[in-house]
Amino acid sequence: MNCAEFRKFGKEIIDYIADYCDTIRQRQVVSSVEPGYLKNLLPAEAPEAGDSWPQVLQDLNRVIAPGLTHWHSPNFHAYYPTANSYPGIVGELLSAGLGIISTDQFPNPACVELERKMMDWLAKILDLPKEFMNSSDGPGGGFIQNAASESTLVALLAAKNRIILETGVEEGNLVAYTSEQSNSSVEKAGLLASVTMRLLRTDEKGQLRGEVLKEAINEDIRMGLTPCCVIATLGTTGTCSFDQLDEIGPICQQFKIWLHVDAAYAGSAFACPEYRHLMKGVEFADSFNFNPHKWMLVNSDCSAMWFRDIQSNELFIQIPDSRRFRALKLWFVLRIYGVEGIRTHIRGQIALAKFFQCLVESDQRFEVCTASMGLVCFRLKGEDGRTKELLDRLAKRKNIFVMPYYYQSRLVIRFVICSRFTEEKDVVFAWREIKSQVE
Amino acid sequence: MNCAEFRKFGKEIIDYIADYCDTIRQRQVVSSVEPGYLKNLLPAEAPEAGDSWPQVLQDLNRVIAPGLTHWHSPNFHAYYPTANSYPGIVGELLSAGLGIISTDQFPNPACVELERKMMDWLAKILDLPKEFMNSSDGPGGGFIQNAASESTLVALLAAKNRIILETGVEEGNLVAYTSEQSNSSVEKAGLLASVTMRLLRTDEKGQLRGEVLKEAINEDIRMGLTPCCVIATLGTTGTCSFDQLDEIGPICQQFKIWLHVDAAYAGSAFACPEYRHLMKGVEFADSFNFNPHKWMLVNSDCSAMWFRDIQSNELFIQIPDSRRFRALKLWFVLRIYGVEGIRTHIRGQIALAKFFQCLVESDQRFEVCTASMGLVCFRLKGEDGRTKELLDRLAKRKNIFVMPYYYQSRLVIRFVICSRFTEEKDVVFAWREIKSQVE
Repeated sequence: MNCAEFRKFGKEIIDYIADYCDTIRQRQVVSSVEPGYLKNLLPAEAPEAGDSWPQVLQDLNRVIAPGLTHWHSPNFHAYYPTANSYPGIVGELLSAGLGIISTDQFPNPACVELERKMMDWLAKILDLPKEFMNSSDGPGGGFIQNAASESTLVALLAAKNRIILETGVEEGNLVAYTSEQSNSSVEKAGLLASVTMRLLRTDEKGQLRGEVLKEAINEDIRMGLTPCCVIATLGTTGTCSFDQLDEIGPICQQFKIWLHVDAAYAGSAFACPEYRHLMKGVEFADSFNFNPHKWMLVNSDCSAMWFRDIQSNELFIQIPDSRRFRALKLWFVLRIYGVEGIRTHIRGQIALAKFFQCLVESDQRFEVCTASMGLVCFRLKGEDGRTKELLDRLAKRKNIFVMPYYYQSRLVIRFVICSRFTEEKDVVFAWREIKSQVE
Repeated sequence: MNCAEFRKFGKEIIDYIADYCDTIRQRQVVSSVEPGYLKNLLPAEAPEAGDSWPQVLQDLNRVIAPGLTHWHSPNFHAYYPTANSYPGIVGELLSAGLGIISTDQFPNPACVELERKMMDWLAKILDLPKEFMNSSDGPGGGFIQNAASESTLVALLAAKNRIILETGVEEGNLVAYTSEQSNSSVEKAGLLASVTMRLLRTDEKGQLRGEVLKEAINEDIRMGLTPCCVIATLGTTGTCSFDQLDEIGPICQQFKIWLHVDAAYAGSAFACPEYRHLMKGVEFADSFNFNPHKWMLVNSDCSAMWFRDIQSNELFIQIPDSRRFRALKLWFVLRIYGVEGIRTHIRGQIALAKFFQCLVESDQRFEVCTASMGLVCFRLKGEDGRTKELLDRLAKRKNIFVMPYYYQSRLVIRFVICSRFTEEKDVVFAWREIKSQVE
C-alpha cells in the first residue's frame, strides 16, 4: 500500500466510523453470534499474497460487524462506560500515524513533555493536591498507564519496596488492605505482588470506614505482620460507593502505610466541584489513579496515575518499557471539549441516571437499592426470582444490555449510563423495555 | 464536535500523516529542542471553553513537530525499529473508532475471536510449535500483550506460581536465569516479581550456552535455592545475538524449569525459513514472545505471546483487565501485506544492513564487530577515543541517529535499519555522513 492508497483507505475508514456512529442506535446492542462464530469465516492461515484494501473493507461487514457488542450504543447499560469521542479517535489516529514511541532509554521529547503537561492539566481539572503535579517543586508527578489494574499493581509494588527498604521486613510478612467491594484486579494485584490482600467489610453504604481498617491493622500487627498498603476505592465497581478517605487517610499516615486511591470510573466526576467532597482526604494519598478512558471521553487506553514521590519510585512506575504517544488524544479531547465540555458531559450522564432513577421510583413494583453517579441499582420488590426472570428476559431480547449484581445478598439490576450518545429518549426506551417484560 | 466535523477533521489528519510520511526524508531525524521546551508553548491549564479543531491542527506544527525525533526517518538507525505501516495505522484508527474493549468479565466476541485467529496466523507464519496455537487440541494459546517487558514479567510470575504450587517451596528461595546480554526489563521483572534474577555470562558471540546455565543451576541447588525460570533471548538488544536454545531447552526440561523465550525484535525474521534454525529448541519453551510492533509492520502496541499451557496460567496471562481491539491492525497488516510482503520487508531490511556492512568492511579504517539481522556494530580501529569522537560529531550534526554500545569492553557504534522508508540511497547517505566525520 502506497501513500496515495493510504489516503483513500484512511478516508474510507473515517467515513466507516462516522457511519457506524450515525447508525449505532439502530444496531442490536448485544451480538447474537455463538462462541466460535469467527473460526470458519476466515481461513486458517494468512494469505500468501496481499489482498487489496477494498477486500478487507468488505470483510469488515462480513466478519467483524456481527461479532460486535456495541459499547457505544445508547442501549448499552452494563459494566461501566469505556470512553470514546471524535477528538479522541482522531488523536489516536495521529499517534498511530506518527508512530513515535518513548522508552526508558529514549524519552522522545514531544511525547514525554506533552504527557507531563497533560497530566498537570488533568490534575488541575480534578483539583488534586498540588504535590502530585509534574510542575510542582517537589518529587511528585503523573503519567499515563494502560489500565487501573496496572496502576494498582504498580502502587502495591512501590509500597512493598518502600517498607522493605525502610524496615528490612521480610516479604512474606506483608499485608495490604482493600474493601470487599473493590475491583477484582486489586485482589489479583496482591497475588501478583505476593502480598496478602485483606478484603475488609464495608458499611451499609458499601464504604470502607476508618474503624474497620484500624481494627484490621492492629490485629495484624499483633500477629506479627507488617501492614504496607491500603487501596481505597472512590466509585466501586458494583455500586459506585466511595470509601471514607478522610477517615482512612489519617490512619495510613499514623501507621506509615502507603495509601493508593483507585478512582477509575468516578474520578472524572471530580472535574465538577460539586462532587469533590467525595475525595476529601485525598491529600493523604501516596498515589492516585483514574481512567479518562472510562468517563472522560478519551478512548482506551489512557489511565492517569500520580505519585506523591515519583522520583523514589522510578523503577516501579511502569511495567511496559516503551509507550505510545497517548498524550495526543488526551490533548485533543481537552482542547476541543474544554473543561466546560467535560463537565457538561459528566453532568449530563448523571442527570440521565437520575432521570432513570425517577422512572424506577415512580413504579411501585420496583425499588431502587443504590444510585450514584451514572449508576442505578434496582430490583423488583420481593423474592430474587422475579428480578432473575426479568434479567433473563431482557438478556434474551437483546434490546438493552444490563447486568445482574448481588448487593447485600439480594439480586439487583445494574443500570449504567455508558454511551455518550445516550439521550432521554433512550432512557425512556430502556425503561419501557424493562417494564414490558414485567407485565 | 459533531459527526460531520469528525469526517473533516479525520480526513485532514489522514492527509497530515500522509504528508508527514511523504516528507519524512527531509526532516532532521533528531529533535533539536532543549529539555522543557514545551512547558511554555502551552498554557498551564486546559481551556475552559473548547477550541476548534483547526486551532489544534495549527498547534500541532507549533508545539509537537519541533519535539519529534522521527523514528520512521530513513536516517534513524538507533535502538531497534518500532513498527509502522499504512494498513497498521488504519487498523488502529478503526479500533479507536469502534471503541470496543474486551474485559475478563466480558469477552467481546469479534475482539476475542479475531485475536485468537490472528495469533494462530502469526504462529504459522513463524512456524512455532503447534501446541502454542489457540486452535490446537491442547491447552496452549496465544494473545496480544502491550510489550515484551510485560510478557517477561507475566512468564516469570507464571513460572513462580507453578513451582510454588508443585513443590510448596518458599518464595524467597526462588532463582531465575537470563544472560548478561538480555534486555534490562528482564532484570527488572525479577525485581518486580521478587525472584532473584542471575545474569549469566555469554560466550564470545554473546550467546548463553547450555554449560554455563547447567553450572549455575547446580551451584544454586547446592546452595539450597530453587531454580524456577530461564529467560532466553533470540536477538539480544545490544548485538542481536541468539542464545543456544537447543542446549538450554533440554536442561530446562531436565530440571523442570520454566523456559520463556524473548524474541522481541528478531522473532519477525522467523517468517523467513532461512532464519528458523536460530530458534532450534523452541519446542522446549513454556512461553514465547515476539513483537510484531517492532519489525512486522504492526504499529505499537502489539506484542505477541504464547503459552504452552494457557489454561493453567489464566490468572497470570495479563495484567491490564481491559484490552483494546488490537487484533484489527494485525489483521489489516497481514491481509494487505500478505506473508510474502512480510518476508520481503524483513529480507529487504536485512539486505540493507548487509549492504552497510560491506561499505564498512571496504574501509580499512573501520572494523565490523558484529552483524546480525538488521543490526551492524562497528568501530574505528584502535583506541575507543576515536570512535567516541566520531559518535560525538555525529550526535552534534543530527543528520543520522546512531547509538554507542560497549561490546566486549570496547566502544562500538550500533547501526540498525529501522525505518520502512530506508533505501540503499539512505544507507549510502549514512555511510558518507560517517566517513565525512572521520576525515
